[in-house]
Amino acid sequence: MQDETRAYVTLALNEKYVIGALVLAHSLHQTRTNKRLVCLVGPDITDERKMQMLDVFDDVVDVSLYSSGDVSRLELLQRPELGVTFTKIQAWRLERYEKCVFLDADTIVLQNIDDLFDRPEFAAAPDIGWPDCFNSGVFVFKPSHETFSALSKLANEKGSFDGGDQGLLNQYFSSWRTQGPEHRLPFTDNMTANAAYGYAPAFERFRDRIRVVHFIGAHKPWMGAPPQTTAQMHGIQQLHDLWWSTHDDLLKHSSDSAIYRYAMGI
Amino acid sequence: MQDETRAYVTLALNEKYVIGALVLAHSLHQTRTNKRLVCLVGPDITDERKMQMLDVFDDVVDVSLYSSGDVSRLELLQRPELGVTFTKIQAWRLERYEKCVFLDADTIVLQNIDDLFDRPEFAAAPDIGWPDCFNSGVFVFKPSHETFSALSKLANEKGSFDGGDQGLLNQYFSSWRTQGPEHRLPFTDNMTANAAYGYAPAFERFRDRIRVVHFIGAHKPWMGAPPQTTAQMHGIQQLHDLWWSTHDDLLKHSSDSAIYRYAMGI
Ligand SMILES: O=c1ccn([C@@H]2O[C@H](COP(=O)(O)OP(=O)(O)O)[C@@H](O)[C@H]2O)c(=O)[nH]1
Ligand SMILES: O=c1ccn([C@@H]2O[C@H](COP(=O)(O)OP(=O)(O)O)[C@@H](O)[C@H]2O)c(=O)[nH]1
Ligand SMILES: [Mn+2]
Ligand SMILES: [Mn+2]
Repeated sequence: MQDETRAYVTLALNEKYVIGALVLAHSLHQTRTNKRLVCLVGPDITDERKMQMLDVFDDVVDVSLYSSGDVSRLELLQRPELGVTFTKIQAWRLERYEKCVFLDADTIVLQNIDDLFDRPEFAAAPDIGWPDCFNSGVFVFKPSHETFSALSKLANEKGSFDGGDQGLLNQYFSSWRTQGPEHRLPFTDNMTANAAYGYAPAFERFRDRIRVVHFIGAHKPWMGAPPQTTAQMHGIQQLHDLWWSTHDDLLKHSSDSAIYRYAMGI
Repeated sequence: MQDETRAYVTLALNEKYVIGALVLAHSLHQTRTNKRLVCLVGPDITDERKMQMLDVFDDVVDVSLYSSGDVSRLELLQRPELGVTFTKIQAWRLERYEKCVFLDADTIVLQNIDDLFDRPEFAAAPDIGWPDCFNSGVFVFKPSHETFSALSKLANEKGSFDGGDQGLLNQYFSSWRTQGPEHRLPFTDNMTANAAYGYAPAFERFRDRIRVVHFIGAHKPWMGAPPQTTAQMHGIQQLHDLWWSTHDDLLKHSSDSAIYRYAMGI
C-alpha cells in the first residue's frame, strides 16, 4: 500500500534535467518503494512535458526560480550554472508530506532506501570535497513553512558561501558535523561517482553497499560519453553503464507511453 | 610543565621522511604544546641522525619494518611504496604513554591541538577519497599491547584492503563511521592539501579553522616545487609556502645545532 505521508522529491529546473529526473524515478520504482515520487519543475517545463512526467511521478509541482546570482563564488566552483539551485529550498514547502528524501536529478538508486525515512531532519552524507560539509544531492528533511522562510531569509541576507544550494544548506544546518550518527548518512547513500577513481580500493571493497550513485560535475550521463580522460578513470564507465541500463529499462517499460516518445525525440 | 603521560608520535621509516618529521616537530613546538614529541624510526636511520633528531624530539624509538607486500592493491592505489606503512601500528607499543596523537611526517600543525588528547580512542577525520573511511594520517589512540597484537594478527591474516596502513586501520576500527561525534575529528584537523582546490569555496570559508595540513600523495613539500599542473591549483602554493616557512624557522632556531648542518647538507 502506498504511504501517502512520505515522498521522494527531485527537481528539474529546466528541460536539460528532465531525463535525469525520469530515470531517477524509474530507478526508485525498480526498488519497489511504497513512497510517493514528486518532481519540482521550473517555469520552462511545458504542460505537455508535465503530463508525460506523471507517467512515472505521482506529483509534479511548479516552482518559481530562485537564483543566488553570486557570480564570483560560483566561478571559484567553476560551475556558473548552479546559481539557480537555490530553488531547491522550495522542497520545504511540500507540507502535505510529513517527511521527505530529496534526491538530485543526477542520481540513481540501486537498492531500496526507504529506511532513510526513519532518519531525523537533517540527515545527509559527507561531501568528498570538504567532508565537514555535507553533499546536498541527497538529504532527509521535514517540510515546514518556517524552515522554508528561514532558508529564504538566509539566502537573501547572507547568500551562500559557494554560490549554490550546498553552501546555503550547510550554513543553515551548520551543526550537522557535530550531531549524532543518525544525522550522518553513509557515503554509500550518496556515492559521488568521482570517488570510484579517487580511492579505487575503497570503491572495490564497498561497492556492494552503494545504494545511491550521484553523477556530480558538469558532465551528466545523459550528455553522452564522458570526456576521454574521465572515461578512462577506474569505475567511471561501469557507473555510466548503470545509468544507461536504467534509462533503457525505463524506455522498455514505457514503450507505448508519452515518455518513450519524449526520450526518443519523436 | 611537561605532561609525561601524553605524546605526539610520528614516523620516519627512512631518510626520505626525516626532514618531514623534524619540520612537524618544530611546528608542534611553535604551538607551545606541553606534550612529549616522539619519533619512531626505521632501521636505516643512523645513530648520528637519531642524535640530531633529539634536538627537537623528546624521544626517538627504533622500530622494525613491517610490510604488507600487497603489490596488486597498492597498484590500484598507485602508491607501491606504501606497503611499509604497516610499521605505523607499532605506535600502539608505546605503553609508557597513556594517550597519544599520531601525525604522519607529511603534516604540519598550525594551531595548538592539545585538546585532541581529550578525545577517546579511536578518533580520526574522514578521508576525502571515501569519507566512510577515516584518513590514517592523524589519529588519537591509546597505546596497548593487546591492540598492537590484534592489529598484527589482522595484518597477517587478512591484510589490508588498500595494501597500506589506512586500509588496515579502517578494517580494525570499522565502527568509526557509526560512533558518536567525539570519535570524528573535524576535517580541519587533518586537512589534506588537495581539498584546497577540490572545493575551493569551502577552503576559503574555513581556512582559519585549519589546525593540521596533510600533504598526501607521492609529492611531498621537501621534494621541491610541486608538478606544474598541481602548483597552479587553488591554494596549493600557499600551503607549500607554509611548510617551507616552518622549515626555514626550524633552521633559524637551530643554526648552531646538528639539525642545521643536516638540513643544509653540510
Ligand atoms: O540547470 C539545472 C541545474 C540544476 N538542476 C537541479 O539542481 C540539482 C543540482 O545541480 P547539479 O546536480 O548539476 O549539481 P552537482 O551535483 O553537479 O553539484 C540537479 O541535480 C537538478 O535537480 C536543474 O534542474 N537544472
Ligand atoms: O617511505 C616512507 C613512506 C612512509 N613513511 C611514513 O608513513 C607515513 C604515511 O605515508 P605517506 O604520508 O607518504 O602516505 P599518504 O599520506 O601520502 O597517503 C609518512 O607520513 C611517514 O610518516 C616513511 O617514513 N617513509
Ligand atoms: Mn547533483
Ligand atoms: Mn601522509
